[in-house]
Amino acid sequence: MSTTPPPDPARVTRVTCVGAGVIGGGWVAHFLARGYDVTAWDPAPDAAGKLRRLVDAAWPALTQLGLAPGASRDRLTVAETLEEACADAQFVQESAPEKLELKRELLAQLDAATPAGVVIASSTSGYPMTDMQTEAADPSRLLVGHPFNPPYLIPLVEVVGGERTDRSAVEWASRFYEVAGKSVITMERELPGFIANRLQEALWREALHMVANGEATVKEIDDSITEGPGLRWAFMGPCLTFALAGGEGGMGHMLDHFGPSLKSPWTRLEAPELDTALRDAMVAGCEEAAAGRSIADLVAERDQGVIDVLRATGRLPKGAAE
Amino acid sequence: MSTTPPPDPARVTRVTCVGAGVIGGGWVAHFLARGYDVTAWDPAPDAAGKLRRLVDAAWPALTQLGLAPGASRDRLTVAETLEEACADAQFVQESAPEKLELKRELLAQLDAATPAGVVIASSTSGYPMTDMQTEAADPSRLLVGHPFNPPYLIPLVEVVGGERTDRSAVEWASRFYEVAGKSVITMERELPGFIANRLQEALWREALHMVANGEATVKEIDDSITEGPGLRWAFMGPCLTFALAGGEGGMGHMLDHFGPSLKSPWTRLEAPELDTALRDAMVAGCEEAAAGRSIADLVAERDQGVIDVLRATGRLPKGAAE
Repeated sequence: MSTTPPPDPARVTRVTCVGAGVIGGGWVAHFLARGYDVTAWDPAPDAAGKLRRLVDAAWPALTQLGLAPGASRDRLTVAETLEEACADAQFVQESAPEKLELKRELLAQLDAATPAGVVIASSTSGYPMTDMQTEAADPSRLLVGHPFNPPYLIPLVEVVGGERTDRSAVEWASRFYEVAGKSVITMERELPGFIANRLQEALWREALHMVANGEATVKEIDDSITEGPGLRWAFMGPCLTFALAGGEGGMGHMLDHFGPSLKSPWTRLEAPELDTALRDAMVAGCEEAAAGRSIADLVAERDQGVIDVLRATGRLPKGAAE
Repeated sequence: MSTTPPPDPARVTRVTCVGAGVIGGGWVAHFLARGYDVTAWDPAPDAAGKLRRLVDAAWPALTQLGLAPGASRDRLTVAETLEEACADAQFVQESAPEKLELKRELLAQLDAATPAGVVIASSTSGYPMTDMQTEAADPSRLLVGHPFNPPYLIPLVEVVGGERTDRSAVEWASRFYEVAGKSVITMERELPGFIANRLQEALWREALHMVANGEATVKEIDDSITEGPGLRWAFMGPCLTFALAGGEGGMGHMLDHFGPSLKSPWTRLEAPELDTALRDAMVAGCEEAAAGRSIADLVAERDQGVIDVLRATGRLPKGAAE
């Protein structure tokens, strides 16, 4: 474990992004828009041009959202070497291709090239850091900071360390991402696919099965989400929205009512046993997530949210007034 | 099969809603707001009061969206009996509890009480109509019209007949729902859970497993969706959004790049074989869904959509200007 204390998360001014594809380039755009100096490196020969095009494409959206004071595309430097990119980094975000061996070696190289105590985060979509930090001299500062595409617009970052990651590094990264404008879920333990990816991967695999079996087309799958549950999920998660299907009885009534359907062949994924412990955990979890809001409050909130989302995306119901 | 032709879907003025819980009551609110006369029936003793409270709770949202000319809560009649409710129906929407035997008997009763030729739709979340239409004298006009909660705001209706449903009834219902302001997916064949429910059920079961195993809390699950993929799914489905993860190479590159991850233990749902046929089907399906829009067009559309949704739901990134 390193002995140099990392900089205060709120005082970071320089970020290094390694890997400049869709995700890495998206991180570059995000950090530039939030007013950081960004140094990027990518081994591809045409990486700099592609990266600048990606940042240019994102910039109108970021300008519309509002740039941080001093934010500028001119504050991007594309380094010639990994060592140059990391030499004075205050934080490193790695977004290399999803290949375990490559990640292992790259993280070891980054660790060797980055000042002691500086946190190095991987954008990996699903590899546990425990499996990736095996080659690094100082694995204590290596962790996962998993974003969603595009990282410059989707707030979520899932932060989780590996077995050899220092708890202080996890806390530092969570705080840094928050300062940098992200919405952070700090996970207490490693879970393949983290949280959001497990959920969307289950949906995605069911979709792939349906296409593979001629049960639905790609367009039907996409439409069924954007015209259906996707409208709710933009602002209220699947648990709270399902709680509202239970009427005034909430999640408890919903589980009691639809419990038997849980064994229906509605997806290829087997359901867990809906025993008392799970039922009670879901009910208690929804109460916690509701944070004092009554079912009526949540219904009103959901209704307003759906209307706002429909209006914002130009989809008020046919015949409705503007 | 009945011989009386059903009314022109565009000239329907009277709708009957049987079952007045969360879904049935939501249908009542929707049809009232779209300017229909609505007759409702529910066997519960306090059904009328509950129904009127539900409609009252929904009305501000519906008023905000814009009511159809002549729309009024006064056009709701709560019938004393099922027979009275159906006597002059031009369309019947059944939203009884999810119990197969109950649905079977109720649909037979509705068929007996409703004028010949009038279409009867079930809101069932997942029973195939083939299994529900067994007791009815005229099963040809029975079909599924599956809504999402709340039916007065979420546009999607999945329409599908059973083995004994007449094709013309399916076409009539699809057209009727469109006239009534819904977004319709007409399915060519029965599939347990239809389309959207299969997708959201896969996600939901993974969520239940995670809570059951202490892998994530209800709040983390909900936050991971609303701060992550849920923002995109409000206006762009999972297939097209994943295509954008492939950069300029789109879905093809995405599948080639993330293909190996498909076998990762990111969810409890086994992935299908990503063979050439499935790969090509996904690529072709995304091209169809994109309908001529380039990857750059889709990226710009996604970016604008996420910004609009964030702004509409009061969640511009921290530090961003309004």
